[in-house]
Amino acid sequence: MDHTYAVIMAGGGGTRLWPISRKEKPKQLLPLLGETTLFQETVQRLEGIFPPERILVVTVDGQAKEMQKQVPQIPARNYLIEPEPKGTASVVGLAAAILHQRDPEAIMTVLPSDHFIRNHDLFDYLLRAAVDVAKSGFLVTLGITPTYPATAYGYIQQGSRIHGNFRYPTYEVIRFKEKPDDAAAQQMLQQGGHSWNSGMFVWTTDKILEEIARQMPVLAQSLQKIMAVVDSSQMQPVIKSIWPTLVSETIDYGIMEKAENVAVLPAGGLGWSDVGSWDSLFEVLLPDMHGNVGVNSQHLSLDSNNTLIYSAPGNDRLIVTIGIDEIVVVDTADVLMVCKSDQSQKVRDIVEHLKQHHLERYL
Amino acid sequence: MDHTYAVIMAGGGGTRLWPISRKEKPKQLLPLLGETTLFQETVQRLEGIFPPERILVVTVDGQAKEMQKQVPQIPARNYLIEPEPKGTASVVGLAAAILHQRDPEAIMTVLPSDHFIRNHDLFDYLLRAAVDVAKSGFLVTLGITPTYPATAYGYIQQGSRIHGNFRYPTYEVIRFKEKPDDAAAQQMLQQGGHSWNSGMFVWTTDKILEEIARQMPVLAQSLQKIMAVVDSSQMQPVIKSIWPTLVSETIDYGIMEKAENVAVLPAGGLGWSDVGSWDSLFEVLLPDMHGNVGVNSQHLSLDSNNTLIYSAPGNDRLIVTIGIDEIVVVDTADVLMVCKSDQSQKVRDIVEHLKQHHLERYL
Repeated sequence: MDHTYAVIMAGGGGTRLWPISRKEKPKQLLPLLGETTLFQETVQRLEGIFPPERILVVTVDGQAKEMQKQVPQIPARNYLIEPEPKGTASVVGLAAAILHQRDPEAIMTVLPSDHFIRNHDLFDYLLRAAVDVAKSGFLVTLGITPTYPATAYGYIQQGSRIHGNFRYPTYEVIRFKEKPDDAAAQQMLQQGGHSWNSGMFVWTTDKILEEIARQMPVLAQSLQKIMAVVDSSQMQPVIKSIWPTLVSETIDYGIMEKAENVAVLPAGGLGWSDVGSWDSLFEVLLPDMHGNVGVNSQHLSLDSNNTLIYSAPGNDRLIVTIGIDEIVVVDTADVLMVCKSDQSQKVRDIVEHLKQHHLERYL
Repeated sequence: MDHTYAVIMAGGGGTRLWPISRKEKPKQLLPLLGETTLFQETVQRLEGIFPPERILVVTVDGQAKEMQKQVPQIPARNYLIEPEPKGTASVVGLAAAILHQRDPEAIMTVLPSDHFIRNHDLFDYLLRAAVDVAKSGFLVTLGITPTYPATAYGYIQQGSRIHGNFRYPTYEVIRFKEKPDDAAAQQMLQQGGHSWNSGMFVWTTDKILEEIARQMPVLAQSLQKIMAVVDSSQMQPVIKSIWPTLVSETIDYGIMEKAENVAVLPAGGLGWSDVGSWDSLFEVLLPDMHGNVGVNSQHLSLDSNNTLIYSAPGNDRLIVTIGIDEIVVVDTADVLMVCKSDQSQKVRDIVEHLKQHHLERYL
């Protein structure tokens, strides 16, 4: 019997890709770069590793229906509903508790629903490698070998090698580091031995529940109550009553930073992006000779370089750029955004402004 | 009896304000900066100086109907149709010939239909002053006192003062200069004594026909044939048969540069622009504290400076700019243009490209 499972965390309502992502349509539910949505692609990447019965999805009430429509092959009982967002620690805990009750030998792979990965074969290879390491009791993080001094990601500093049998060896983790400033990012890149924290993890439910019990005892007690009613008619009501009492916490801060036996498996060449800002699309899309990238766009470029021209599906306007550099243009039915590439994280400020000025119709 | 007339040259099909101006809707026929079109504003500016009966409009077949709709107060017989564009020398000649036949003492003011002038009172004052100077036999050009080293305009070098009685004195013209390069423009600005050539002229039909006869005898002969049939049923057929034989020439090159008794009346503070490029709108519109100008736009700006955000009427999308400087954004139903301000003259290259690649639907 195969005890490996995937848990897809899909409750996010991120605003970082506004105006394409909206309140009702967060980025994982959008066909951001092609015909299929990021959520569908996340599931497709798992084909051949996990059959649908061994994939769990944790999401929120407002998104579950659309997700089941997009990925009907995953059984209904594997869609877990978070009554309200309470951080990734709670999500991981919930999934671990339920899986552990269903299969005490479960090994769970935790994956975000809204990342992009170009190299599927390598991803497959790395997951299998990580599962092997997790079997020997480690909490394994998939790290991404940095290609530039990013300040938008957390970093993981590696220590000595644990497994030497793979083309991609695994290392002990010395420490997790929060998003750095420019200088610190530069330094880590030069120094080597650091990976970006991708938010992808592999561990046994046994080990992760043990760490939760040690570091987050209140959460652990709540999970015990849920474990007592898993797959009964009481499960959803119990979750509903417990959830508001939880403290919102991330898995990184709540568990990983002080966990024991943490390992990192650094991956280079995965073609990974968290698609966390418009800027980040430059990392994963192939530009033309002038560095210009178009998505769904009819783009006519004159003396323009390193532009990202993104049209919402169905927007077939001709987009002309003249003499501009490092600019992102996002064209939707009701909003047009023109943004300097390296300032695309400020989209959040715009979203905040819209909230405060009663312009929710654009959110 | 008042012998003053205005002749509005309105046949242009300029592409410099594409994608707002289109083949079927050149810029003079558009409500570019408000409720009324540039052509309507040109006529409105003449109120109190010229009654509609003394305003002539020279245009082309495709535009005449729309112009009469926009300005019905000008009598139909004052709309003159150019069978095909043959340069401003032919237009001026045609208008002068017809006016002279109707009123041998006619003094004609020649005005483009698609310029912007903010200060109407001063414009009124200058026109009256120019008429006075024209009465004493001069070919008068309205010059614009340069406010920056423009390379998009021709220049007029002034000599000694002719009339000293006005707050805005008139000068003899030493020479007309073609559009200069940066260095030459800088030098003229520092040196003083130069005006931009606005394309606005005042003269008696007598004097201008005399100059045409001297410098462009072939055109003069053709005009003689038209003068023989003015306001008869033969007029339009005769124009139609003559027009294809004319050489296309501008009034500046064909007449003004080598004319005798040319005067310039330099105007400062007129708030004038030929609206000849997107960039030029910055000259005539009042920006906010960050130098941003919006026309018809719902614009939300974050860390952006000196942007021009222009929405075609009826386009009510929210336009968000983040971290951009000196950029022009033009938003229309079927085309979006994003352009570095100082490169807006390259719109012509785009138009050329569209022609060559069978994308006429955007023209």
